[in-house]
Amino acid sequence: MARALNFNAGPAAIPLPALERARDELLDFNGSGMSIMEHSHRGKDYESVHREASALLRKLLSVPEDFHVLFLTGGASQQFAQIPMNFLRPGESADYVITGGWSEKAYEEAQRVGSARVACDTKRDGTFSRVPAQGEVAVDPAAAYVHVTSNNTLYGTQWHHELDPQGRPLISDMSSDFLWKPFDVTRYAMIYAGAQKNLGPSGVLIALVHKSMIERARADIPVIFRYATHAKNDSLYNTPPTFAIYMVRNVLAWLDSIGGLPVIEARNRQKAALLYGALDAHKGFYHCPVEEGSRSTMNVVWKLASEALEEQFVAEAKKHNMVGLKGHRSVGGLRASIYNAVDVETVKTLADFVGDFAKRNG
Amino acid sequence: MARALNFNAGPAAIPLPALERARDELLDFNGSGMSIMEHSHRGKDYESVHREASALLRKLLSVPEDFHVLFLTGGASQQFAQIPMNFLRPGESADYVITGGWSEKAYEEAQRVGSARVACDTKRDGTFSRVPAQGEVAVDPAAAYVHVTSNNTLYGTQWHHELDPQGRPLISDMSSDFLWKPFDVTRYAMIYAGAQKNLGPSGVLIALVHKSMIERARADIPVIFRYATHAKNDSLYNTPPTFAIYMVRNVLAWLDSIGGLPVIEARNRQKAALLYGALDAHKGFYHCPVEEGSRSTMNVVWKLASEALEEQFVAEAKKHNMVGLKGHRSVGGLRASIYNAVDVETVKTLADFVGDFAKRNG
Repeated sequence: MARALNFNAGPAAIPLPALERARDELLDFNGSGMSIMEHSHRGKDYESVHREASALLRKLLSVPEDFHVLFLTGGASQQFAQIPMNFLRPGESADYVITGGWSEKAYEEAQRVGSARVACDTKRDGTFSRVPAQGEVAVDPAAAYVHVTSNNTLYGTQWHHELDPQGRPLISDMSSDFLWKPFDVTRYAMIYAGAQKNLGPSGVLIALVHKSMIERARADIPVIFRYATHAKNDSLYNTPPTFAIYMVRNVLAWLDSIGGLPVIEARNRQKAALLYGALDAHKGFYHCPVEEGSRSTMNVVWKLASEALEEQFVAEAKKHNMVGLKGHRSVGGLRASIYNAVDVETVKTLADFVGDFAKRNG
Repeated sequence: MARALNFNAGPAAIPLPALERARDELLDFNGSGMSIMEHSHRGKDYESVHREASALLRKLLSVPEDFHVLFLTGGASQQFAQIPMNFLRPGESADYVITGGWSEKAYEEAQRVGSARVACDTKRDGTFSRVPAQGEVAVDPAAAYVHVTSNNTLYGTQWHHELDPQGRPLISDMSSDFLWKPFDVTRYAMIYAGAQKNLGPSGVLIALVHKSMIERARADIPVIFRYATHAKNDSLYNTPPTFAIYMVRNVLAWLDSIGGLPVIEARNRQKAALLYGALDAHKGFYHCPVEEGSRSTMNVVWKLASEALEEQFVAEAKKHNMVGLKGHRSVGGLRASIYNAVDVETVKTLADFVGDFAKRNG
């Protein structure tokens, strides 16, 4: 059948060329007579994939040599604990900027590990509709680090300015908008992102960690949780999720082949403009709860007048082969995730449907 | 090209039908127009895979209802830390039976988390060549749990009797021989196994945990590391490694289709008899360092008179399409891993080559 128009929030759409490559060599990788899944993680075939994934990431983002590129597991949720385990010493405290459900979870987990405080919280009336301005964030001058969430999948908000952490190390959870555009890695002490939005399937997380952070990280925690362990062993201390990393390699190779981050940024901006434009054209019918300056280019959320109408929207969209449009179960409403792998044509189809649905039901 | 004869220690051979199924539906799972990798972990398509993997495991092993079946990440190496984090309270100590490199690592990690002691250590002259008899294991009557490693991939040893933990909870790392034969799950408090030997690709670990263990586990550790979190949420607290679990489903479905554990046990015993038989037939030429009663049915290790001869063996075997025969870098020698997915015919080819190589070079 035809490819679905997939607006899932994650796991999400993967570029077709990356999937086709995986299918074509699933039984025989590189003439070896084995699937890449069956190769040893210590063998040259897998190692070349592992190195290529890392090298492509360095190339696409211009990652300097003083950052380690790590492939980790457990998703962002495990990082919520692993970050304070590595970087919070007794007597120290870390700052958290709360802009949505994921940053709340990160903050709560840090409190279980050590001491953490809220540098800003944009929650109002039980929900989040914006990210803060610089002046709203009161950074503790002694904070071990400042943690932010660059894009909030549940609430559809995204930072369009970069926080100045006042000289403290800045750590960003970029799970849902990593690689949506070029950015300056050197402003950060650590960046992490689960793969299942812009990078590939679930089951692997990419972290960029500055060497100075690894050098001063705690050495009194279990070996497996130390970033130093994975940095020293090039993410091969224990068996990595080889197939997930192979898929990330395929996705990064595709991204590189189309022209890299400047090209994908232009497409992403075009997609966001198309969809927000269609929603704004029927402002009484559709309600976008996010302040305009905080609108996410990755997750577009909106509401209709009733749940019944929202269900009708989802059902009719499905008849046009569009899936994944229900909002997160904790938030409700509608949501279209338009990550890198969702092409302009697909978003145009949705934007047209948005307009048509409003005309028929408005 | 022809399928390689794959003796890798892990990641290892995967049954061809499980791989073909993955290839055939890689772009279109269940008529959805999406890869299983692109499906939401909260959607019905993926959930049916998740549940089927769990149900197949329960069926194959007759897992009772009072055990949770968990899909976790980070491999056995993460469990080495996570087990004491959950089950060791201040003032308590756990017992470790040391039979190889992996149990040493498990013990060392437990010491970083809390208090652990060695109940037995079969290391002699820097190496391991056997598992202990019951009388050699001195269990602490107050031990929080007793930890064993059922099969030792590096040294090629395996337990052929089950340890009596003297009334203490028994936890077994079965990463490299889980599902090689039927066994009584109820003797254990917890069993865990990385998938990349008998179960599928790397990137997911299966744990069977008795409910009583989860009920008394610590609640003062990060949420993500609590077994209770994953038990309560059916391993869907955070995004699981969906494709890896899908592959486990495919492998378990294959295992079920051929007749389940009694059939695979007969095959595994036949394979081990073929290979050890060929090595024993040329006892002066090949040296098997493992005591006969501790020989592994999964990882067969042997040495030749010189490293040069071992290299020649590997190179000639490769010309006959056999790969993965080098011993672990920490141990040297030769090793053939003959997990469930390696068929009798493949092992017969290796056994014939073993005999032929001895005749030509002995």
